[in-house]
Amino acid sequence: MPQMTVFDLPTPGLVLDRSKLSRNIRLMRDVAQRHGVALRPHMKTAKSIEVARLALDGQPGGVAVSTLKEAEYFARHGIRDIQYAVSIVPDKLERVAAIQRLGARVTLITDSAEVARAIGAKSAELDEVFHVQIEIDCGEGRSGLFADNGALLEIARILDQAGQCAFAGVMTHAGHSYQCRSIAEIEAVAETERSAAVLAADRVRGIGIACPAVSVGSTPTALHARSLGGVTEARAGVYMLGDMFQAQIGSCRVDDLALSVITEVTSHRAQLGRLVVDAGALALSKDRSTANVANDVGFGLVADAEGRPMQPQLTVERVYQEHGQIPLPGARMFDRLPIGTRLRIYPNHVCMTAAMYDQYYLVDSANGDGREIIGTWSRVNGW
Amino acid sequence: MPQMTVFDLPTPGLVLDRSKLSRNIRLMRDVAQRHGVALRPHMKTAKSIEVARLALDGQPGGVAVSTLKEAEYFARHGIRDIQYAVSIVPDKLERVAAIQRLGARVTLITDSAEVARAIGAKSAELDEVFHVQIEIDCGEGRSGLFADNGALLEIARILDQAGQCAFAGVMTHAGHSYQCRSIAEIEAVAETERSAAVLAADRVRGIGIACPAVSVGSTPTALHARSLGGVTEARAGVYMLGDMFQAQIGSCRVDDLALSVITEVTSHRAQLGRLVVDAGALALSKDRSTANVANDVGFGLVADAEGRPMQPQLTVERVYQEHGQIPLPGARMFDRLPIGTRLRIYPNHVCMTAAMYDQYYLVDSANGDGREIIGTWSRVNGW
Repeated sequence: MPQMTVFDLPTPGLVLDRSKLSRNIRLMRDVAQRHGVALRPHMKTAKSIEVARLALDGQPGGVAVSTLKEAEYFARHGIRDIQYAVSIVPDKLERVAAIQRLGARVTLITDSAEVARAIGAKSAELDEVFHVQIEIDCGEGRSGLFADNGALLEIARILDQAGQCAFAGVMTHAGHSYQCRSIAEIEAVAETERSAAVLAADRVRGIGIACPAVSVGSTPTALHARSLGGVTEARAGVYMLGDMFQAQIGSCRVDDLALSVITEVTSHRAQLGRLVVDAGALALSKDRSTANVANDVGFGLVADAEGRPMQPQLTVERVYQEHGQIPLPGARMFDRLPIGTRLRIYPNHVCMTAAMYDQYYLVDSANGDGREIIGTWSRVNGW
Repeated sequence: MPQMTVFDLPTPGLVLDRSKLSRNIRLMRDVAQRHGVALRPHMKTAKSIEVARLALDGQPGGVAVSTLKEAEYFARHGIRDIQYAVSIVPDKLERVAAIQRLGARVTLITDSAEVARAIGAKSAELDEVFHVQIEIDCGEGRSGLFADNGALLEIARILDQAGQCAFAGVMTHAGHSYQCRSIAEIEAVAETERSAAVLAADRVRGIGIACPAVSVGSTPTALHARSLGGVTEARAGVYMLGDMFQAQIGSCRVDDLALSVITEVTSHRAQLGRLVVDAGALALSKDRSTANVANDVGFGLVADAEGRPMQPQLTVERVYQEHGQIPLPGARMFDRLPIGTRLRIYPNHVCMTAAMYDQYYLVDSANGDGREIIGTWSRVNGW
């Protein structure tokens, strides 16, 4: 039986370039080592044990996850140190305890004294140790406490005094680094992130409570921070795969993008000057983050089947549930791209796009020809 | 063991109200009967055999699907008449043949003479009958041929003359009905849709080729068409579940929405006047279709755990991957909605939102209390 290539895959499908993934992973590892902090790969993007193993190689830390389903999956696959980096609510604690019984420590986060008390009560009820960090808002305005909030010390005290609970430190996420449009801006946000986390840790230590973890991170700030003084670990996830948005805010180059969607030309709308492909709103997601950066690529940048961006630049301008439309700059392009042509699309926001697929098809553009499918890797979606 | 309710579900999750679903299904069935056309439920929205069985009850037609994975799933569950309503490409024909060997007829669509020839060749090679319709563009500009395009007759001839192929008629989809903002506008688009399909069918019949199916549809046009003269079947899908966008363009009322996402308050950002819930961009999708209608509900309308919209109106204004933010009109609202409170969110575009989940949790607000989980139904996602 002949070897499978990208030309044989069902479309749409996820294609992951292992050599680019490995290069991205090495780069972030080097950055963390240079700062002397642990790297905690955030698996909310790749959601894959095979990717986690690559990302963890040689690292002292564990992983971060965004859903309890990810936590279960990684625990079942032998990961022992998992930070569930979304505010815990009391009625999820029994599920957390069940995951811990698989052999993993699941570190929780909260920004609420009321939740901290409930964790303490549940911990006693279940005779289960919960490790809890306090989430700090360093300026994104998502969840967390501002570092100077009085509730910070109240929560630290509650957790420190609850018998079976362990106060496990502070964490923050500079998601507002996505609004930066220059490296200098990212450096400034990274310093805000670092200083907010360190201030919060210092305040807790000031009342005599040990603060083991000072955890920060987002892909842009982890890459571009000038100093991580006082920080113990950096979390990041998108850096492994990369996307068109990250490429435009300076987190990577287009040539570093490890993930693309393989699609096929299904229709020629010559009168409208457009190709139709079988990657639409579900296959690419409706994320439009590149609408806010210099080069708006619509719903994705079009490359050939080997992953090389088309010249002149082509983008997916419109999506319908299962159709994507690509305007062509001239009638001759239709001859170059007959129905059945396979293309690869680099998405705007890889976390959103990848979440629609159960697996990755692996290629290797450095050690292979970029066409041959050298394996499939799993993903865990949903909640 | 006590009966499970919406308060016990893992969050985020899909809650489907069976009585509203049944009411929506009856309404569309009555409309089709009044027009004397068959209703072909489009399963791209609900993607569920249990919903398909309800929607097909008493109907002569089969279903439409948007992916071959749906086609496989419905064929395995005994559906015998399946229209794959996305342009076929030649290299998917072997998969279609395999689905037909499960006992279903899979009707294909194309807008290309080249593809029609390739279907004929593959049909002979595999000794397999393929039923093929020609897709007409009635004004949406997505895929298809304009009804007056010369290629229409060329394709009909190719299909009619290819030994094992069967020309199965014409079909069109007035997706541009989603741009309408009044019933009068929808009626006008519905008439454009009907007349384009009938014109195409008449042209084919004019060269002596029988045109068995004249298939039209979208939820708004199927509901509001004044005449379906000359049409044999109407396809629609969103009507079963409904969403905030459909409610605003006149396809349903908010009280008809059968599908919502159950979520939980995870954080109070009192200083920012916002609640955080555990339904974010993945749980709700990034669809922003209500940005273009009168009442912009952000990423969804907030209801209580029983599905009653909150008063005053609350909406999910911002989403992050696993966080949604709901601005509150006053500080007192935080007391009404403590951390752990369960809410239900009616999404903008139900096709996009539901696609993130593997199953539905069923409630019944007419024959039950709207809280008790009376069952779970399956979904088929991916490709």
